[in-house]
Amino acid sequence: MTEPHDPRVGDLAESAILRTILASIGTAAAAEVGPGDDAAVLRVPDGRVVATTDTLVHGPDFRLAWSSGTDLGWKAAAVNLADVAAMGARPTGLLVALAMPADTRLSFVRGLAEGLAACCSSLAPGCAVIGGDLTISSTLTIAVTALGSLEGRAPVLRSGARPGDVVALAGAAGVAARGIDLLFSRFTDSSGPVAVDRATLNAAELEALDAQLRPSPPIGQGVAAADAGATAMMDVSDGLALDATRLAEASGVTLALRIAEVGGDPRWAIDGGEDHALLATFARGSDLPEGFRVIGDVTAAGAHPLLLDGEPRAPRGWDPYRDWDAGIG
Amino acid sequence: MTEPHDPRVGDLAESAILRTILASIGTAAAAEVGPGDDAAVLRVPDGRVVATTDTLVHGPDFRLAWSSGTDLGWKAAAVNLADVAAMGARPTGLLVALAMPADTRLSFVRGLAEGLAACCSSLAPGCAVIGGDLTISSTLTIAVTALGSLEGRAPVLRSGARPGDVVALAGAAGVAARGIDLLFSRFTDSSGPVAVDRATLNAAELEALDAQLRPSPPIGQGVAAADAGATAMMDVSDGLALDATRLAEASGVTLALRIAEVGGDPRWAIDGGEDHALLATFARGSDLPEGFRVIGDVTAAGAHPLLLDGEPRAPRGWDPYRDWDAGIG
Repeated sequence: MTEPHDPRVGDLAESAILRTILASIGTAAAAEVGPGDDAAVLRVPDGRVVATTDTLVHGPDFRLAWSSGTDLGWKAAAVNLADVAAMGARPTGLLVALAMPADTRLSFVRGLAEGLAACCSSLAPGCAVIGGDLTISSTLTIAVTALGSLEGRAPVLRSGARPGDVVALAGAAGVAARGIDLLFSRFTDSSGPVAVDRATLNAAELEALDAQLRPSPPIGQGVAAADAGATAMMDVSDGLALDATRLAEASGVTLALRIAEVGGDPRWAIDGGEDHALLATFARGSDLPEGFRVIGDVTAAGAHPLLLDGEPRAPRGWDPYRDWDAGIG
Repeated sequence: MTEPHDPRVGDLAESAILRTILASIGTAAAAEVGPGDDAAVLRVPDGRVVATTDTLVHGPDFRLAWSSGTDLGWKAAAVNLADVAAMGARPTGLLVALAMPADTRLSFVRGLAEGLAACCSSLAPGCAVIGGDLTISSTLTIAVTALGSLEGRAPVLRSGARPGDVVALAGAAGVAARGIDLLFSRFTDSSGPVAVDRATLNAAELEALDAQLRPSPPIGQGVAAADAGATAMMDVSDGLALDATRLAEASGVTLALRIAEVGGDPRWAIDGGEDHALLATFARGSDLPEGFRVIGDVTAAGAHPLLLDGEPRAPRGWDPYRDWDAGIG
């Protein structure tokens, strides 16, 4: 959707694009120096900063036919906030490196900045963009770094699960994967991705679509899980089976999950990625924080790191290097 | 240069690529949690972290015909380290988001990791890659975030220059710009960039080439300048005239520079970018730290933010949105 007088970024000076972005991103509560100098300065009172980076690339990670600038800003923030939350930390600031084709419209950039800000204020109040970089590229690329504060807590690693713990999950299982399936099956023609007509979708389909395009992972539950004594935690980005296998291997244990307790449609819930749910383990008998449901048990390492309803299960899941087919756009 | 048995990243699992990278990057002295979990944890003992991001994109920022993987890893680190140094901080960790075409060779990725590590150990000992992200893309893109520690110092902003201060510069002026000119004039044919034959270059040309492809900004001088009471500082990435104008405007002053004192070839020294020298202001009479030379004076804001040998000078300099011509590769 091109606005009247909506210039191409290739026709603007970098400073003009920056002004548009800065007008939308808000202020991080913990920023001592925000955007505009060589670097930002962020307060992390306990003397440790949590830092993670995750990138969205046009083609493998999104299609402009399906995602608006606002969707992309939201999603680029959400997937990074989830990694901070998975350490038991509170997200406090984002740095955004934006590489854009010259024919990108300024309205798209504004939407992107608004999406970043809206996601932060919805999922991680106080967090905001504190810095970034603009460059030109043939491929629209949004690389976000998220920073967070542990506020005195120990970081919750993948390696801390112990036999006897319970396995718990906060957030959706397989909903974002249903969404991407819907996009490929219903909004793709011989030319590639086509615009989504929301009026043709029922409520469950709209939920799946939104989970894919504008995910709302349970960011606040990361701190809650750490406070409740989570022994291990990670963000489920590549599918529950694959990520549970990673957690099991990092901890040197087996995770035995019960499919019925995972919830969601088992066709998608086990291998579907991009929900950014939080997978955590807790000592048996712990009071689980709100939002977590028990989905299995931690046992001593057996022959297989992952059992689903008692059966060994080799993980499948999204691997960008193996799975992306440039031909589908 | 393809090694025997040098696989394409598109034929490898993400975990295999990661193993290659992790074998080369070393360990950050301040890392409490390094790569391999959802996020890294970095110690910043004074409770504030300096954070900046800068991206290299194939086309506008580098050409593979001219730069090796090692060159690119080095440069991606150096340009970010310089932004941390320009705040008066010590760089302590890097996050690297790497988006690569499927036909990128593993040897290239190894070189890139080695270049990142070599730059850190040469220019910022103790700093190393603490995390990152891999994805596939049509356009090779290296987005680095650098983090740093102020160690109790106040950050040195662009806005602190006061009338009566002297202006000083540490590092090269115009050498990297001579290097890019050399590449375009001597190593480009009708098909675009061609491989550099170093044997055809004299010592000054080799210096210029290396300054462009593998810059060594004066990272340690950032902390030294802060300790010496620098009132303002910034990294000269887009040309001295443009960046001096930015510092003057941020501080509400005029900078009066003397071209002969800048050094280097005036054809390149004033507008040439990418040297990542440190431009700083100090109270008159300060003992300047080693490596800084006085190049002018700060005066009350006049009609023009920048005077060169007494004459007003509108800045020119590199603007990726205005200056990149996709047609030249």
